[in-house]
Amino acid sequence: MPVITSVTVEDVRFPTSLTADGSDAMNKDGDYSAAYVVVRTDGTDSVGAPLAGYGMTFTIGRGNDIVAAAARQQADRLVGKDVAKIAADMGGLYRFLTSDSQFRWLGPEKGVVHLSLAAVMNAAWDLVARFEGKPLWRLLADKSPEELVDIADLRYLSDALTRDEAVALLRAKESSRDEHIAALERSGYPVYTTSAGWLGYSDEKLRRLCQEAVETGYGHVKLKVGANLEEDIRRVKIAREVLGPDRHIMIDANQVWDVEEAIEWVHALAEFKPLWIEEPTSPDDVLGHARIRKAVAPIGVATGEHCHNRVMFKQFLQAEAIDFLQLDTGRLASINEILAVLLLAAKFGVPVCPHAGGVGLCEMVQHISVLDYVAVTGDLTGRVTEFVDHLHEHFVDPCQVVEAVPGAGVGYVLPIQPGYSTQMYEASIAAYRFPDGTYWSAVTTSPGAADN
Amino acid sequence: MPVITSVTVEDVRFPTSLTADGSDAMNKDGDYSAAYVVVRTDGTDSVGAPLAGYGMTFTIGRGNDIVAAAARQQADRLVGKDVAKIAADMGGLYRFLTSDSQFRWLGPEKGVVHLSLAAVMNAAWDLVARFEGKPLWRLLADKSPEELVDIADLRYLSDALTRDEAVALLRAKESSRDEHIAALERSGYPVYTTSAGWLGYSDEKLRRLCQEAVETGYGHVKLKVGANLEEDIRRVKIAREVLGPDRHIMIDANQVWDVEEAIEWVHALAEFKPLWIEEPTSPDDVLGHARIRKAVAPIGVATGEHCHNRVMFKQFLQAEAIDFLQLDTGRLASINEILAVLLLAAKFGVPVCPHAGGVGLCEMVQHISVLDYVAVTGDLTGRVTEFVDHLHEHFVDPCQVVEAVPGAGVGYVLPIQPGYSTQMYEASIAAYRFPDGTYWSAVTTSPGAADN
Repeated sequence: MPVITSVTVEDVRFPTSLTADGSDAMNKDGDYSAAYVVVRTDGTDSVGAPLAGYGMTFTIGRGNDIVAAAARQQADRLVGKDVAKIAADMGGLYRFLTSDSQFRWLGPEKGVVHLSLAAVMNAAWDLVARFEGKPLWRLLADKSPEELVDIADLRYLSDALTRDEAVALLRAKESSRDEHIAALERSGYPVYTTSAGWLGYSDEKLRRLCQEAVETGYGHVKLKVGANLEEDIRRVKIAREVLGPDRHIMIDANQVWDVEEAIEWVHALAEFKPLWIEEPTSPDDVLGHARIRKAVAPIGVATGEHCHNRVMFKQFLQAEAIDFLQLDTGRLASINEILAVLLLAAKFGVPVCPHAGGVGLCEMVQHISVLDYVAVTGDLTGRVTEFVDHLHEHFVDPCQVVEAVPGAGVGYVLPIQPGYSTQMYEASIAAYRFPDGTYWSAVTTSPGAADN
Repeated sequence: MPVITSVTVEDVRFPTSLTADGSDAMNKDGDYSAAYVVVRTDGTDSVGAPLAGYGMTFTIGRGNDIVAAAARQQADRLVGKDVAKIAADMGGLYRFLTSDSQFRWLGPEKGVVHLSLAAVMNAAWDLVARFEGKPLWRLLADKSPEELVDIADLRYLSDALTRDEAVALLRAKESSRDEHIAALERSGYPVYTTSAGWLGYSDEKLRRLCQEAVETGYGHVKLKVGANLEEDIRRVKIAREVLGPDRHIMIDANQVWDVEEAIEWVHALAEFKPLWIEEPTSPDDVLGHARIRKAVAPIGVATGEHCHNRVMFKQFLQAEAIDFLQLDTGRLASINEILAVLLLAAKFGVPVCPHAGGVGLCEMVQHISVLDYVAVTGDLTGRVTEFVDHLHEHFVDPCQVVEAVPGAGVGYVLPIQPGYSTQMYEASIAAYRFPDGTYWSAVTTSPGAADN
């Protein structure tokens, strides 16, 4: 049986700040980056190629080396492990990696060591799915309710969700899994686009990209706001003109406001009827989000891309602070923690609309949204998953979005290759590895300056 | 005027796991460690010695190198800065270091990049206090309410505390500062000891250390609990026997319980009348702590050593989740954030009892508690600051605790040397720098094993 023989972690950075892709009120000059983990084995996969696992977390530039260094220390503990044994007990592997109390102190369960744990465990999940010859969503959809709950990290959640409740939730949807898979095979999983609305884009580019979104079949478009109210009013007005009254606009402030400031600003944009305000304030402020939600209804409140663990999501749900839960596959510690959050959200009746974009996040979230629909909720009401059309060319099995059924909206095409869709081309790594890849060797420094 | 010429960051680790000092239900084998920052200048201090600043954050072993690497990147941005300009605008320096959006993404404001920021800013505060020739508490106590509020990081707090409220709080205590300083000069700042109650100690050692605490004059002793209920009952019973009915016992579970489990366990120890239960569950669980607090009253709830920023403390206060606020000088991003938390706590009427122990934390918290009493609250009611008698021998200006007034209890002696008391001996660094110090070169690996 195959055994893990080595692990490497690369610091890969793309110079996205050059084109203002990804610019928002908090993050003016991100260089989309991945701490990229490769877990190698002495085995072969179902088609005879060397069996390996590929995983990552997402950062926006400087400090990606810090995350990579942490991932290296965590991933080293995988060497020598038997892949079949890991595959049979991914809950055990997760507890093994999270039970290092010295490392735990550096979070706990947050920040760099949690981002790096996500990268390592994402690679382990990719490895296991390749070992089993299935796309990750399918590997999970083939498991029983009890097997799934054994995987989920329910620690600190029992006051909101017991193990028995979790099993019962999954049991209730078990018989309809095949039907839901068939539905997604027909029309894909619903997506929205953020590619139109970065803050650094001109009005003309915004108008053109909104028009293109309409023509492509998008029913939801997200815009960045929060730097300047007059400009926000002008930009959201342009989007509403182009999108018409029936398509949805979402607005995203990327944490720039205090609580009362958020309420005033959103009220000033209410006439354009946004579906949600995303990240109105500090991602740690559960009670602040609850206050904002009450004040800005019927505009919804969305957050989660910086929500650092399941305990925070538990409270966002308990406090009735959010209308849309935007978990992040690079920030939560892989399927083990994500599954716990999906179960919590299902119990509280809040739709999960994962955060994506960056690099590799779209590739991963498609598996999460499919899992949520097929095994956890069986419901697409209010669900729409982010899609951003950047950097997919670096992936061996990139996500795809199409409008499969005319008029039904754009959706993620169900992944069919084994794994978590997280493998990057070796040529991409060779070019964009920091600082010694061929691209970075040719420039002197990261273009995103630290003084901002 | 002096200019910052270089910064070095050392990974310093002490092999405390060998003696079970610091052992608790979550952390069985900590090696007390410091990411230790030295900021050098081309100037001299008030006695003609080279002017430098020394700061640190505290970790428990593995991963201390990750924190040091992050601190190096943050501290490099200080080189070339004018010390007098920094001293005149420490709020500006803090905002300069926290406004790097690429680095911010790795938290935000939590985990490794916040620990490392604490280390760097602690060194900057030590530098500025030495530059002014004052102990840090005195440097701050000499500032006006407006100057102090300019230093405090009030971002995301305005729904709980406005700038005007903060100024008014400080103004109300301004005229009594000298009187409060005189009181501390007489009797010191009240402390409690944790040295007696580590989980790895035998019953005999526990009994002996409790007896010694009584003889030394301690009115408060803290014990670790949470690994085994029968053993906890036996150990707390021993402590109560030795301490008698009038001295206080505090118990500390170091996050091992879920919410309902915490309530049941604390009820089972209630007969021994603990003053507080510390860290009963996840440090992120504001609402969980609020639930526990209601259920275990009149036993108090204490937390904060892992509370990662001011936004979390704001919510612990808003949710009425804690009776004692245990901020940590290595986890909050230095005086700038700590002052904001002191102001919040004063507004909500919750006593601040800082976490200490580890390495260097006692040296720092004495300044914080003095600042809290002299400038913010003018109140010692319910206040008692942690003291643990480990590793002080490595500090040039170690903290001291004595019972200055017989029968009045043990207190921290008011620091009088310039700075933040954070300078370590060069010989200590040379011995315990990891992995190349003379101590670690002589052993093969860190004794605290990762598999636990």
